[in-house]
Amino acid sequence: MQELLFFKDVLEKSLHSETILKEPEQLYAPIEYILSLGGKRIRPVLTLLSCEFLGGDYKKAIPAAMAVELFHNFSLIHDDIMDEAPLRRGKETVHKKWNVNTGILSGDAMLILAYQYFEAYEPKLFQELAKLFSKTALEVCEGQQYDVDFETRNDVSIPEYIRMIEYKTAVLLGAALKMGAIIANSSEENKEGIYNFGRNLGIAFQLQDDYLDAFGNPETFGKQVGGDILANKKTFLYLTALQEAKPTDANDLKKLFQIKTENDTQKIEKVKAIFETSGAANRTQQEIEKYTQKALGCLETVSLSEAKKEKLRVFAATMMNRQA
Amino acid sequence: MQELLFFKDVLEKSLHSETILKEPEQLYAPIEYILSLGGKRIRPVLTLLSCEFLGGDYKKAIPAAMAVELFHNFSLIHDDIMDEAPLRRGKETVHKKWNVNTGILSGDAMLILAYQYFEAYEPKLFQELAKLFSKTALEVCEGQQYDVDFETRNDVSIPEYIRMIEYKTAVLLGAALKMGAIIANSSEENKEGIYNFGRNLGIAFQLQDDYLDAFGNPETFGKQVGGDILANKKTFLYLTALQEAKPTDANDLKKLFQIKTENDTQKIEKVKAIFETSGAANRTQQEIEKYTQKALGCLETVSLSEAKKEKLRVFAATMMNRQA
Repeated sequence: MQELLFFKDVLEKSLHSETILKEPEQLYAPIEYILSLGGKRIRPVLTLLSCEFLGGDYKKAIPAAMAVELFHNFSLIHDDIMDEAPLRRGKETVHKKWNVNTGILSGDAMLILAYQYFEAYEPKLFQELAKLFSKTALEVCEGQQYDVDFETRNDVSIPEYIRMIEYKTAVLLGAALKMGAIIANSSEENKEGIYNFGRNLGIAFQLQDDYLDAFGNPETFGKQVGGDILANKKTFLYLTALQEAKPTDANDLKKLFQIKTENDTQKIEKVKAIFETSGAANRTQQEIEKYTQKALGCLETVSLSEAKKEKLRVFAATMMNRQA
Repeated sequence: MQELLFFKDVLEKSLHSETILKEPEQLYAPIEYILSLGGKRIRPVLTLLSCEFLGGDYKKAIPAAMAVELFHNFSLIHDDIMDEAPLRRGKETVHKKWNVNTGILSGDAMLILAYQYFEAYEPKLFQELAKLFSKTALEVCEGQQYDVDFETRNDVSIPEYIRMIEYKTAVLLGAALKMGAIIANSSEENKEGIYNFGRNLGIAFQLQDDYLDAFGNPETFGKQVGGDILANKKTFLYLTALQEAKPTDANDLKKLFQIKTENDTQKIEKVKAIFETSGAANRTQQEIEKYTQKALGCLETVSLSEAKKEKLRVFAATMMNRQA
């Protein structure tokens, strides 16, 4: 979709025209650094797109889009510290390039800077946007906490898992779209509809990420296939397999997930076999389809021309078919 | 002052009536924990006091006071991680009781919760308060960064040091008072006057903290006397002594600040002697007096009854004379 490229370009220009690098340099340089690493900028682009599609001027949505992008990158800096991740988009993570303390403090500053972008709006709009932003940001923290908790829990249920990915990933997509609708002064129904379109699509997207981690094409997936399996991550695939597999397979799976190896092709193959024979792989694909359809259903409740709806459907399809 | 006790009580009740402990518990328990550790609650009490003194109803200032207290405690959690501090108010710090990741994430949530308290206000007030809050919060981050930078710099100037303590400590006192004035719908002049009263008093207070760290009475100071000296901290005393001492003493001082000892009474005594003979001890007391007088001068610009001004003067004196 042409608009996506246009809005990404608008956003990149906006990011580059900002003079984020102020004194003290040690605080602001990491912010500039992580923003310069690129990325698809999906969330802020959705804010601009949603505003324009719902009858507003995308230019008015730029500050909110910037807030969304800053928040997203703040969460990446702090998550990378928590996950001890050495790389982000192929480059050193902030806490590796500088140190953990710099990562903490620059992240904090970035969260505050995100709030400051809303100051561009008049009070009523400011409040509505900042309220949605705070609610969403808190949910993202809660999602991250659930994710951490699940590592040491052996009784994670599937609904709990869905809630975790909903909070950690999906609500920010919904909020990014809803902000555009708020700035376009769209109806409450449209705001909720576009929010739920994004939220459900976000869940579908994350489930697909889980699926592709095991069954994706190594050449197009971008990450190491089997990474979640080696990290013993309790994904939807794993939780479903535990529930659906015959007892001996379920036991094998549990045992396989108690060992930690660096690169055990055999482990990956064994686990994937159970994912398939148990029907978990199929169930996951059905679930992805279910949330995608939910998203498209929500889109139907939004007052939009058929041409614009079709563009959003194409966007959803592109997002879901990224890597086969 | 009777009001201080009353407002502290109001605040404690408000803190206890909040149901901060939600799911996921691991995220919210540390927030409840640090808020339960007590403290003087000076900042939020000043918000209530300022609102009431400037003609508002202190009850209306409670959400803003809560935001200030949550922000202060958020900064304590993250600072304690950065300083690797094991204790806070005699109890384990959050990252010690739980772990660093929990400290990072609960701190983040606490900063967002602080913003949410402003949602109690109507849009115009919300925006004015949130703007002041963001500006102040960012300055606190900048102050913390300067403090970190100064550890490894050998060319810190006295004005830079003053700016560091201004940002790290003083602006939040000013902002706490100004929020009360904003909620009381006071004049711009009053808002600025009360802000600068708090800001200058905050600088005086922090300088006195530096002074007492070396020259305080060990029985009433509360912290280890000489702690800054053992940590080679470049305080106002140190920077002034370097500038004012005769060359041989300045050299001795520099050398003494290159060694790290756990409990070297001799080092403390030698450094204190240079602080005195160089005149740095006296200069620090003069500086404390200068900022205290500046604060009182700012108070004069605020439209307040003489009786209320006198109460704030007594408050300032109490704050400055806490430990002799």
